[in-house]
Amino acid sequence: MQKAIGVFDSGVGGLTVVKELIHQLPNEDIIYFGDTARVPYGIKSKETIIRFSIENILFLLKQEVKLICVACNTVSSIALPAIKNHFRVPIVGVLSPGAREAVYATKNKRIGVIGTKATITSQAYEKEIRMLDPTIRIVSQACPLFVPFVEEGWLNGRAVEDVAKVYLTSLKKAGVDTIILGCTHYPLLKPVIRKVMGQAVVLIDSAKQVATEVKQILANEALLEAKSHRPDRAFYVSDGPAWFSGLAKRFLGYSLKTVTKVDPIV
Amino acid sequence: MQKAIGVFDSGVGGLTVVKELIHQLPNEDIIYFGDTARVPYGIKSKETIIRFSIENILFLLKQEVKLICVACNTVSSIALPAIKNHFRVPIVGVLSPGAREAVYATKNKRIGVIGTKATITSQAYEKEIRMLDPTIRIVSQACPLFVPFVEEGWLNGRAVEDVAKVYLTSLKKAGVDTIILGCTHYPLLKPVIRKVMGQAVVLIDSAKQVATEVKQILANEALLEAKSHRPDRAFYVSDGPAWFSGLAKRFLGYSLKTVTKVDPIV
Repeated sequence: MQKAIGVFDSGVGGLTVVKELIHQLPNEDIIYFGDTARVPYGIKSKETIIRFSIENILFLLKQEVKLICVACNTVSSIALPAIKNHFRVPIVGVLSPGAREAVYATKNKRIGVIGTKATITSQAYEKEIRMLDPTIRIVSQACPLFVPFVEEGWLNGRAVEDVAKVYLTSLKKAGVDTIILGCTHYPLLKPVIRKVMGQAVVLIDSAKQVATEVKQILANEALLEAKSHRPDRAFYVSDGPAWFSGLAKRFLGYSLKTVTKVDPIV
Repeated sequence: MQKAIGVFDSGVGGLTVVKELIHQLPNEDIIYFGDTARVPYGIKSKETIIRFSIENILFLLKQEVKLICVACNTVSSIALPAIKNHFRVPIVGVLSPGAREAVYATKNKRIGVIGTKATITSQAYEKEIRMLDPTIRIVSQACPLFVPFVEEGWLNGRAVEDVAKVYLTSLKKAGVDTIILGCTHYPLLKPVIRKVMGQAVVLIDSAKQVATEVKQILANEALLEAKSHRPDRAFYVSDGPAWFSGLAKRFLGYSLKTVTKVDPIV
Protein backbone atom coordinates (compact mmCIF):
# COMPACT_ATOMS: atom_id res chain seq x y z
CA MET A 1 0.00 0.00 0.00
CA GLN A 2 1.06 3.53 -0.84
CA LYS A 3 2.01 5.43 2.29
CA ALA A 4 1.78 9.22 2.57
CA ILE A 5 4.08 11.91 3.90
CA GLY A 6 2.48 13.39 7.01
CA VAL A 7 2.78 17.12 7.59
CA PHE A 8 1.53 19.12 10.54
CA ASP A 9 1.48 22.72 11.66
CA SER A 10 -0.35 24.72 14.32
CA GLY A 11 -2.48 26.17 11.54
CA VAL A 12 -2.28 27.22 7.94
CA GLY A 13 1.37 28.37 7.70
CA GLY A 14 2.69 24.87 7.04
CA LEU A 15 1.06 24.95 3.62
CA THR A 16 4.12 26.91 2.39
CA VAL A 17 6.06 23.69 3.08
CA VAL A 18 3.42 21.54 1.39
CA LYS A 19 3.72 23.74 -1.70
CA GLU A 20 7.43 22.98 -1.87
CA LEU A 21 6.94 19.26 -1.15
CA ILE A 22 4.49 19.07 -4.07
CA HIS A 23 7.00 20.86 -6.26
CA GLN A 24 9.92 18.59 -5.38
CA LEU A 25 8.00 15.35 -4.79
CA PRO A 26 5.04 15.51 -7.18
CA ASN A 27 4.25 11.79 -6.92
CA GLU A 28 3.95 11.61 -3.14
CA ASP A 29 0.71 11.31 -1.24
CA ILE A 30 0.47 13.97 1.45
CA ILE A 31 -1.66 14.10 4.60
CA TYR A 32 -1.72 17.53 6.24
CA PHE A 33 -3.01 18.37 9.69
CA GLY A 34 -3.48 21.96 10.88
CA ASP A 35 -4.35 22.38 14.58
CA THR A 36 -6.58 25.38 13.95
CA ALA A 37 -8.62 24.83 17.13
CA ARG A 38 -5.56 25.62 19.25
CA VAL A 39 -3.62 27.95 16.95
CA PRO A 40 -1.40 29.92 17.59
CA TYR A 41 1.32 27.90 19.35
CA GLY A 42 3.98 30.63 19.32
CA ILE A 43 2.69 32.42 22.41
CA LYS A 44 2.29 29.23 24.48
CA SER A 45 4.51 27.35 26.94
CA LYS A 46 7.00 24.63 26.11
CA GLU A 47 5.00 22.04 28.03
CA THR A 48 1.79 22.83 26.15
CA ILE A 49 3.52 22.94 22.75
CA ILE A 50 5.03 19.51 23.42
CA ARG A 51 1.66 18.06 24.46
CA PHE A 52 -0.11 19.43 21.37
CA SER A 53 2.74 18.21 19.11
CA ILE A 54 2.56 14.66 20.43
CA GLU A 55 -1.20 14.61 19.85
CA ASN A 56 -0.69 15.80 16.28
CA ILE A 57 2.01 13.19 15.63
CA LEU A 58 -0.25 10.43 16.99
CA PHE A 59 -3.03 11.59 14.68
CA LEU A 60 -0.72 11.34 11.66
CA LEU A 61 0.60 7.94 12.78
CA LYS A 62 -3.00 6.67 12.84
CA GLN A 63 -3.07 7.57 9.12
CA GLU A 64 0.01 5.33 8.71
CA VAL A 65 2.32 7.97 7.26
CA LYS A 66 5.87 6.97 6.32
CA LEU A 67 7.56 10.20 7.42
CA ILE A 68 6.43 13.24 9.40
CA CYS A 69 7.38 16.73 8.38
CA VAL A 70 6.91 19.32 11.11
CA ALA A 71 6.05 22.39 9.06
CA CYS A 72 6.12 24.76 12.01
CA ASN A 73 9.15 26.54 13.42
CA THR A 74 7.70 26.82 16.91
CA VAL A 75 7.19 23.05 17.17
CA SER A 76 10.55 22.38 15.49
CA SER A 77 12.34 24.63 17.98
CA ILE A 78 10.50 23.74 21.17
CA ALA A 79 9.09 20.23 20.94
CA LEU A 80 11.15 18.37 18.38
CA PRO A 81 14.42 18.10 20.34
CA ALA A 82 12.45 16.57 23.23
CA ILE A 83 10.25 14.11 21.35
CA LYS A 84 11.86 13.31 17.99
CA ASN A 85 13.54 10.13 19.20
CA HIS A 86 10.42 8.69 20.80
CA PHE A 87 8.99 7.68 17.46
CA ARG A 88 10.05 5.08 14.91
CA VAL A 89 8.96 7.11 11.90
CA PRO A 90 11.48 9.70 10.63
CA ILE A 91 10.52 13.21 11.77
CA VAL A 92 11.90 16.23 9.89
CA GLY A 93 11.73 19.74 11.31
CA VAL A 94 12.19 23.07 9.58
CA LEU A 95 15.04 24.27 11.78
CA SER A 96 18.26 22.60 10.65
CA PRO A 97 17.61 23.04 6.91
CA GLY A 98 17.03 26.78 7.36
CA ALA A 99 20.06 27.22 9.61
CA ARG A 100 22.34 25.40 7.13
CA GLU A 101 21.09 27.49 4.24
CA ALA A 102 21.67 30.73 6.17
CA VAL A 103 25.23 29.79 7.15
CA TYR A 104 25.88 29.00 3.50
CA ALA A 105 24.34 32.27 2.31
CA THR A 106 25.87 34.88 4.63
CA LYS A 107 28.94 36.74 3.39
CA ASN A 108 29.55 39.11 6.29
CA LYS A 109 28.84 36.38 8.90
CA ARG A 110 25.95 38.29 10.43
CA ILE A 111 22.63 36.48 10.44
CA GLY A 112 19.28 37.74 11.67
CA VAL A 113 16.67 35.31 12.97
CA ILE A 114 13.00 36.27 13.26
CA GLY A 115 10.22 34.05 14.60
CA THR A 116 7.48 33.66 17.19
CA LYS A 117 8.18 34.38 20.85
CA ALA A 118 8.47 30.67 21.65
CA THR A 119 10.93 30.06 18.79
CA ILE A 120 13.14 33.02 19.67
CA THR A 121 13.07 32.31 23.42
CA SER A 122 14.20 28.72 22.76
CA GLN A 123 17.39 29.98 21.07
CA ALA A 124 17.18 26.86 18.94
CA TYR A 125 18.38 28.64 15.79
CA GLU A 126 21.36 30.16 17.62
CA LYS A 127 22.43 26.74 18.87
CA GLU A 128 22.05 25.22 15.41
CA ILE A 129 24.00 28.02 13.68
CA ARG A 130 26.77 28.03 16.32
CA MET A 131 27.28 24.31 15.82
CA LEU A 132 27.85 24.96 12.12
CA ASP A 133 29.99 28.08 12.53
CA PRO A 134 30.74 29.54 15.97
CA THR A 135 32.18 32.76 14.48
CA ILE A 136 28.83 33.95 13.11
CA ARG A 137 27.13 36.86 14.84
CA ILE A 138 23.41 36.24 15.34
CA VAL A 139 20.72 38.84 16.08
CA SER A 140 17.32 37.39 17.02
CA GLN A 141 13.97 39.12 17.23
CA ALA A 142 10.49 37.84 18.06
CA CYS A 143 7.84 39.36 15.77
CA PRO A 144 4.55 38.28 17.37
CA LEU A 145 2.37 40.67 15.36
CA PHE A 146 3.51 39.27 11.99
CA VAL A 147 1.35 36.12 12.17
CA PRO A 148 -1.94 37.97 12.77
CA PHE A 149 -1.06 40.44 10.00
CA VAL A 150 -0.46 37.58 7.53
CA GLU A 151 -3.58 35.69 8.59
CA GLU A 152 -5.63 38.86 8.13
CA GLY A 153 -4.08 39.38 4.70
CA TRP A 154 -2.51 42.75 5.61
CA LEU A 155 0.62 41.97 3.60
CA ASN A 156 1.48 45.53 2.70
CA GLY A 157 0.57 49.08 3.62
CA ARG A 158 1.62 51.50 6.31
CA ALA A 159 0.57 49.53 9.39
CA VAL A 160 2.55 46.38 8.63
CA GLU A 161 5.51 48.49 7.48
CA ASP A 162 5.48 50.39 10.77
CA VAL A 163 5.46 47.13 12.68
CA ALA A 164 8.27 45.69 10.54
CA LYS A 165 10.37 48.82 11.07
CA VAL A 166 10.12 48.44 14.85
CA TYR A 167 10.85 44.70 14.84
CA LEU A 168 13.75 44.89 12.39
CA THR A 169 15.61 47.82 14.00
CA SER A 170 18.18 45.66 15.79
CA LEU A 171 18.83 43.52 12.69
CA LYS A 172 19.35 46.63 10.61
CA LYS A 173 21.70 48.19 13.16
CA ALA A 174 23.74 44.99 13.28
CA GLY A 175 24.07 45.03 9.48
CA VAL A 176 22.93 41.43 8.92
CA ASP A 177 23.11 40.37 5.26
CA THR A 178 20.93 37.27 5.74
CA ILE A 179 17.68 36.75 7.63
CA ILE A 180 16.11 33.42 8.53
CA LEU A 181 12.33 33.68 8.22
CA GLY A 182 11.83 31.45 11.23
CA CYS A 183 8.06 31.09 10.90
CA THR A 184 6.10 29.59 8.03
CA HIS A 185 3.92 32.71 7.79
CA TYR A 186 6.77 35.11 7.17
CA PRO A 187 7.55 34.32 3.51
CA LEU A 188 4.36 36.22 2.68
CA LEU A 189 5.95 39.34 4.19
CA LYS A 190 9.11 39.17 2.06
CA PRO A 191 8.29 42.38 0.14
CA VAL A 192 7.74 44.37 3.35
CA ILE A 193 10.88 42.95 4.98
CA ARG A 194 12.93 43.80 1.85
CA LYS A 195 11.48 47.31 1.85
CA VAL A 196 12.66 47.85 5.42
CA MET A 197 15.98 45.95 5.22
CA GLY A 198 17.02 46.84 1.67
CA GLN A 199 16.71 44.74 -1.48
CA ALA A 200 20.16 43.13 -1.05
CA VAL A 201 19.23 41.18 2.09
CA VAL A 202 19.00 37.40 1.62
CA LEU A 203 15.78 35.99 3.06
CA ILE A 204 15.95 32.31 4.00
CA ASP A 205 12.63 30.58 3.67
CA SER A 206 13.24 27.04 4.91
CA ALA A 207 10.42 25.36 2.94
CA LYS A 208 12.66 24.57 -0.03
CA GLN A 209 15.43 23.09 2.13
CA VAL A 210 12.97 21.06 4.16
CA ALA A 211 11.50 19.47 1.04
CA THR A 212 15.01 18.60 -0.14
CA GLU A 213 15.76 16.96 3.21
CA VAL A 214 12.49 14.97 3.08
CA LYS A 215 13.40 13.79 -0.40
CA GLN A 216 16.86 12.67 0.72
CA ILE A 217 15.54 10.73 3.70
CA LEU A 218 12.90 8.97 1.60
CA ALA A 219 15.56 8.11 -0.98
CA ASN A 220 17.93 6.77 1.68
CA GLU A 221 15.20 4.62 3.19
CA ALA A 222 13.96 3.46 -0.23
CA LEU A 223 10.57 5.00 0.49
CA LEU A 224 10.26 7.28 -2.54
CA GLU A 225 7.09 6.78 -4.53
CA ALA A 226 7.22 5.39 -8.08
CA LYS A 227 6.75 8.02 -10.75
CA SER A 228 3.62 6.56 -12.28
CA HIS A 229 1.55 7.27 -9.17
CA ARG A 230 -1.19 9.86 -9.21
CA PRO A 231 -0.97 11.43 -5.76
CA ASP A 232 -3.66 11.84 -3.12
CA ARG A 233 -3.46 14.91 -0.93
CA ALA A 234 -5.70 15.13 2.12
CA PHE A 235 -6.11 18.14 4.40
CA TYR A 236 -7.37 17.90 7.98
CA VAL A 237 -7.92 20.64 10.54
CA SER A 238 -9.15 20.71 14.13
CA ASP A 239 -11.41 23.72 13.46
CA GLY A 240 -12.81 25.98 10.77
CA PRO A 241 -12.32 24.01 7.53
CA ALA A 242 -13.97 26.84 5.57
CA TRP A 243 -11.62 29.44 7.07
CA PHE A 244 -8.68 27.16 6.27
CA SER A 245 -9.80 26.65 2.66
CA GLY A 246 -10.11 30.40 2.29
CA LEU A 247 -6.58 31.03 3.50
CA ALA A 248 -5.06 28.05 1.66
CA LYS A 249 -4.74 29.81 -1.67
CA ARG A 250 -2.54 32.51 -0.13
CA PHE A 251 -0.07 29.92 1.20
CA LEU A 252 -0.36 27.04 -1.23
CA GLY A 253 -0.95 28.87 -4.47
CA TYR A 254 -4.18 27.00 -5.23
CA SER A 255 -7.55 26.48 -3.58
CA LEU A 256 -8.53 23.40 -1.60
CA LYS A 257 -11.84 21.76 -2.37
CA THR A 258 -11.96 19.33 0.55
CA VAL A 259 -10.79 20.13 4.07
CA THR A 260 -11.97 17.74 6.80
CA LYS A 261 -12.47 18.60 10.44
CA VAL A 262 -11.11 16.13 13.00
CA ASP A 263 -10.19 16.12 16.68
CA PRO A 264 -6.54 15.05 17.09
CA ILE A 265 -7.07 14.06 20.72
CA VAL A 266 -9.84 11.53 20.11
CA MET B 1 -19.29 27.64 53.36
CA GLN B 2 -18.46 30.78 51.44
CA LYS B 3 -19.01 30.27 47.71
CA ALA B 4 -17.14 32.23 45.06
CA ILE B 5 -18.17 34.01 41.89
CA GLY B 6 -16.71 32.10 38.93
CA VAL B 7 -15.38 34.09 36.00
CA PHE B 8 -13.94 32.75 32.78
CA ASP B 9 -12.48 34.13 29.58
CA SER B 10 -10.48 32.74 26.68
CA GLY B 11 -7.43 34.47 28.13
CA VAL B 12 -6.46 37.57 30.01
CA GLY B 13 -9.06 40.07 28.75
CA GLY B 14 -11.68 39.03 31.29
CA LEU B 15 -9.57 40.61 34.03
CA THR B 16 -11.11 43.96 33.04
CA VAL B 17 -14.40 42.48 34.30
CA VAL B 18 -12.75 41.11 37.46
CA LYS B 19 -11.42 44.59 38.17
CA GLU B 20 -14.97 45.95 38.11
CA LEU B 21 -16.36 43.04 40.16
CA ILE B 22 -13.77 43.73 42.86
CA HIS B 23 -14.72 47.41 42.79
CA GLN B 24 -18.47 46.79 43.11
CA LEU B 25 -18.37 43.60 45.18
CA PRO B 26 -15.28 43.93 47.36
CA ASN B 27 -16.34 41.18 49.77
CA GLU B 28 -16.88 38.44 47.22
CA ASP B 29 -14.55 35.51 46.64
CA ILE B 30 -13.63 35.21 42.97
CA ILE B 31 -12.31 32.24 41.01
CA TYR B 32 -11.02 33.17 37.56
CA PHE B 33 -10.16 30.79 34.75
CA GLY B 34 -8.36 31.94 31.58
CA ASP B 35 -8.12 29.35 28.80
CA THR B 36 -4.69 30.54 27.68
CA ALA B 37 -3.76 27.17 26.11
CA ARG B 38 -6.48 27.64 23.49
CA VAL B 39 -6.67 31.43 23.24
CA PRO B 40 -7.83 33.18 21.06
CA TYR B 41 -11.44 32.07 20.61
CA GLY B 42 -12.51 34.92 18.31
CA ILE B 43 -11.15 33.34 15.13
CA LYS B 44 -12.64 29.89 15.82
CA SER B 45 -15.90 28.16 14.86
CA LYS B 46 -19.17 28.23 16.80
CA GLU B 47 -18.96 24.49 17.50
CA THR B 48 -15.44 24.75 18.94
CA ILE B 49 -16.24 27.86 21.01
CA ILE B 50 -19.25 26.06 22.51
CA ARG B 51 -17.16 22.98 23.35
CA PHE B 52 -14.43 25.03 25.03
CA SER B 53 -17.03 27.10 26.93
CA ILE B 54 -18.74 24.03 28.35
CA GLU B 55 -15.39 22.67 29.51
CA ASN B 56 -14.60 25.97 31.22
CA ILE B 57 -18.01 26.08 32.92
CA LEU B 58 -17.55 22.51 34.18
CA PHE B 59 -14.16 23.45 35.60
CA LEU B 60 -15.72 26.35 37.53
CA LEU B 61 -18.62 24.18 38.71
CA LYS B 62 -16.07 21.77 40.19
CA GLN B 63 -14.90 24.72 42.29
CA GLU B 64 -18.52 25.07 43.51
CA VAL B 65 -19.06 28.63 42.39
CA LYS B 66 -22.43 30.28 43.06
CA LEU B 67 -22.62 32.23 39.80
CA ILE B 68 -20.64 32.23 36.58
CA CYS B 69 -19.71 35.42 34.83
CA VAL B 70 -18.63 34.95 31.22
CA ALA B 71 -16.10 37.74 30.84
CA CYS B 72 -15.66 37.23 27.10
CA ASN B 73 -17.74 38.75 24.33
CA THR B 74 -17.01 35.94 21.89
CA VAL B 75 -18.34 33.30 24.30
CA SER B 76 -21.26 35.54 25.33
CA SER B 77 -22.25 36.04 21.69
CA ILE B 78 -21.67 32.56 20.31
CA ALA B 79 -21.98 29.99 23.06
CA LEU B 80 -24.13 31.50 25.78
CA PRO B 81 -27.47 31.54 23.92
CA ALA B 82 -27.01 27.82 23.21
CA ILE B 83 -25.86 26.58 26.62
CA LYS B 84 -26.98 29.07 29.27
CA ASN B 85 -30.10 27.15 30.20
CA HIS B 86 -28.37 23.81 30.58
CA PHE B 87 -26.95 24.75 33.94
CA ARG B 88 -28.55 25.36 37.30
CA VAL B 89 -26.12 28.08 38.35
CA PRO B 90 -26.89 31.62 37.08
CA ILE B 91 -24.67 32.51 34.10
CA VAL B 92 -24.15 36.17 33.22
CA GLY B 93 -22.67 37.26 29.88
CA VAL B 94 -21.24 40.60 28.86
CA LEU B 95 -23.57 41.15 25.92
CA SER B 96 -26.92 42.37 27.27
CA PRO B 97 -25.44 44.80 29.81
CA GLY B 98 -23.33 46.47 27.10
CA ALA B 99 -26.21 46.62 24.62
CA ARG B 100 -28.54 48.20 27.21
CA GLU B 101 -25.96 50.81 28.14
CA ALA B 102 -25.36 51.73 24.49
CA VAL B 103 -29.08 52.14 23.75
CA TYR B 104 -29.31 54.38 26.80
CA ALA B 105 -26.26 56.43 25.77
CA THR B 106 -26.85 57.15 22.08
CA LYS B 107 -28.43 60.46 21.17
CA ASN B 108 -28.43 60.23 17.38
CA LYS B 109 -29.56 56.57 17.43
CA ARG B 110 -26.47 55.37 15.60
CA ILE B 111 -24.40 52.78 17.42
CA GLY B 112 -21.14 51.19 16.32
CA VAL B 113 -20.21 47.69 17.46
CA ILE B 114 -16.64 46.41 17.30
CA GLY B 115 -15.47 42.93 18.31
CA THR B 116 -13.77 39.74 17.21
CA LYS B 117 -14.75 38.06 13.94
CA ALA B 118 -16.83 35.45 15.76
CA THR B 119 -18.70 38.09 17.78
CA ILE B 120 -19.45 40.29 14.77
CA THR B 121 -20.42 37.36 12.53
CA SER B 122 -22.89 36.17 15.17
CA GLN B 123 -24.80 39.49 14.97
CA ALA B 124 -25.62 38.93 18.63
CA TYR B 125 -25.26 42.62 19.52
CA GLU B 126 -27.51 43.67 16.61
CA LYS B 127 -30.23 41.29 17.79
CA GLU B 128 -29.94 42.51 21.37
CA ILE B 129 -30.04 46.20 20.40
CA ARG B 130 -32.95 45.73 17.96
CA MET B 131 -34.99 44.06 20.71
CA LEU B 132 -34.47 47.15 22.85
CA ASP B 133 -35.01 49.72 20.09
CA PRO B 134 -35.65 48.66 16.50
CA THR B 135 -35.17 52.23 15.18
CA ILE B 136 -31.46 52.33 16.00
CA ARG B 137 -29.00 52.13 13.13
CA ILE B 138 -26.12 49.74 13.86
CA VAL B 139 -22.74 49.57 12.12
CA SER B 140 -20.61 46.55 13.01
CA GLN B 141 -16.95 45.92 12.34
CA ALA B 142 -14.66 43.02 13.24
CA CYS B 143 -11.23 44.24 14.39
CA PRO B 144 -9.16 41.03 14.57
CA LEU B 145 -5.80 42.79 14.86
CA PHE B 146 -6.79 44.70 18.01
CA VAL B 147 -6.36 41.71 20.37
CA PRO B 148 -2.76 40.93 19.33
CA PHE B 149 -1.88 44.63 19.55
CA VAL B 150 -3.24 44.83 23.12
CA GLU B 151 -1.58 41.58 24.19
CA GLU B 152 1.73 42.85 22.80
CA GLY B 153 1.25 46.14 24.65
CA TRP B 154 1.25 48.26 21.49
CA LEU B 155 -1.45 50.55 22.86
CA ASN B 156 -0.42 53.66 20.98
CA GLY B 157 1.81 54.76 18.14
CA ARG B 158 1.48 54.89 14.39
CA ALA B 159 0.93 51.19 13.65
CA VAL B 160 -2.08 50.73 15.92
CA GLU B 161 -3.49 54.10 14.81
CA ASP B 162 -3.22 53.05 11.15
CA VAL B 163 -5.04 49.82 11.93
CA ALA B 164 -7.73 51.66 13.92
CA LYS B 165 -8.26 54.13 11.07
CA VAL B 166 -8.91 51.29 8.63
CA TYR B 167 -11.24 49.41 10.97
CA LEU B 168 -13.22 52.46 12.09
CA THR B 169 -13.83 53.99 8.63
CA SER B 170 -17.38 52.68 8.27
CA LEU B 171 -18.32 53.75 11.82
CA LYS B 172 -16.98 57.22 11.18
CA LYS B 173 -18.80 57.54 7.86
CA ALA B 174 -22.05 56.48 9.52
CA GLY B 175 -21.58 59.15 12.19
CA VAL B 176 -22.12 56.87 15.19
CA ASP B 177 -22.06 58.74 18.51
CA THR B 178 -21.65 55.58 20.61
CA ILE B 179 -19.42 52.52 20.19
CA ILE B 180 -19.74 49.24 22.04
CA LEU B 181 -16.28 47.90 22.80
CA GLY B 182 -17.43 44.34 22.20
CA CYS B 183 -14.27 42.62 23.37
CA THR B 184 -12.69 42.73 26.82
CA HIS B 185 -9.33 43.76 25.32
CA TYR B 186 -10.60 46.89 23.65
CA PRO B 187 -10.94 49.20 26.69
CA LEU B 188 -7.14 49.43 26.63
CA LEU B 189 -7.40 51.01 23.17
CA LYS B 190 -9.82 53.77 24.25
CA PRO B 191 -7.27 56.58 23.66
CA VAL B 192 -6.51 55.38 20.11
CA ILE B 193 -10.20 54.89 19.28
CA ARG B 194 -11.00 58.39 20.61
CA LYS B 195 -8.15 59.84 18.56
CA VAL B 196 -9.62 58.33 15.39
CA MET B 197 -13.34 58.85 16.16
CA GLY B 198 -13.14 62.19 17.97
CA GLN B 199 -13.25 62.89 21.71
CA ALA B 200 -17.05 63.19 21.81
CA VAL B 201 -17.73 59.55 20.99
CA VAL B 202 -19.16 57.51 23.88
CA LEU B 203 -17.25 54.25 24.38
CA ILE B 204 -19.25 51.51 26.10
CA ASP B 205 -17.09 49.18 28.10
CA SER B 206 -19.47 46.54 29.43
CA ALA B 207 -17.40 45.56 32.49
CA LYS B 208 -19.15 48.06 34.75
CA GLN B 209 -22.65 47.01 33.64
CA VAL B 210 -21.80 43.34 33.98
CA ALA B 211 -20.65 43.80 37.56
CA THR B 212 -23.88 45.65 38.33
CA GLU B 213 -25.91 42.78 36.87
CA VAL B 214 -23.94 40.21 38.87
CA LYS B 215 -24.61 42.23 42.02
CA GLN B 216 -28.35 42.39 41.30
CA ILE B 217 -28.64 38.66 40.67
CA LEU B 218 -26.74 37.81 43.84
CA ALA B 219 -28.95 40.21 45.79
CA ASN B 220 -32.15 38.72 44.30
CA GLU B 221 -31.02 35.20 45.15
CA ALA B 222 -29.83 36.19 48.61
CA LEU B 223 -26.31 35.10 47.72
CA LEU B 224 -24.45 38.32 48.47
CA GLU B 225 -21.53 37.91 50.82
CA ALA B 226 -21.61 39.46 54.30
CA LYS B 227 -19.53 42.61 54.60
CA SER B 228 -17.17 41.30 57.23
CA HIS B 229 -15.62 38.73 54.91
CA ARG B 230 -12.05 39.05 53.73
CA PRO B 231 -12.17 37.80 50.17
CA ASP B 232 -10.14 35.08 48.48
CA ARG B 233 -9.33 35.55 44.84
CA ALA B 234 -7.85 32.65 42.89
CA PHE B 235 -6.58 32.76 39.32
CA TYR B 236 -6.28 29.66 37.12
CA VAL B 237 -5.04 29.36 33.53
CA SER B 238 -4.60 26.46 31.13
CA ASP B 239 -1.16 27.66 30.05
CA GLY B 240 1.61 30.16 30.77
CA PRO B 241 0.89 31.35 34.33
CA ALA B 242 3.99 33.59 34.18
CA TRP B 243 2.85 35.21 30.94
CA PHE B 244 -0.59 35.71 32.48
CA SER B 245 0.83 37.29 35.64
CA GLY B 246 2.88 39.62 33.49
CA LEU B 247 -0.14 40.81 31.52
CA ALA B 248 -2.46 40.94 34.53
CA LYS B 249 -1.32 44.34 35.72
CA ARG B 250 -2.30 45.94 32.41
CA PHE B 251 -5.87 44.66 32.71
CA LEU B 252 -6.46 44.40 36.43
CA GLY B 253 -4.48 47.36 37.68
CA TYR B 254 -2.40 45.28 40.08
CA SER B 255 -0.01 42.33 39.84
CA LEU B 256 -0.94 38.75 40.63
CA LYS B 257 1.33 36.78 42.92
CA THR B 258 -0.21 33.35 42.41
CA VAL B 259 -1.54 32.03 39.12
CA THR B 260 -2.11 28.27 38.94
CA LYS B 261 -1.98 26.14 35.82
CA VAL B 262 -4.77 23.60 35.35
CA ASP B 263 -6.27 21.57 32.51
CA PRO B 264 -10.00 22.33 32.24
CA ILE B 265 -10.69 19.07 30.37
CA VAL B 266 -9.29 16.69 32.96
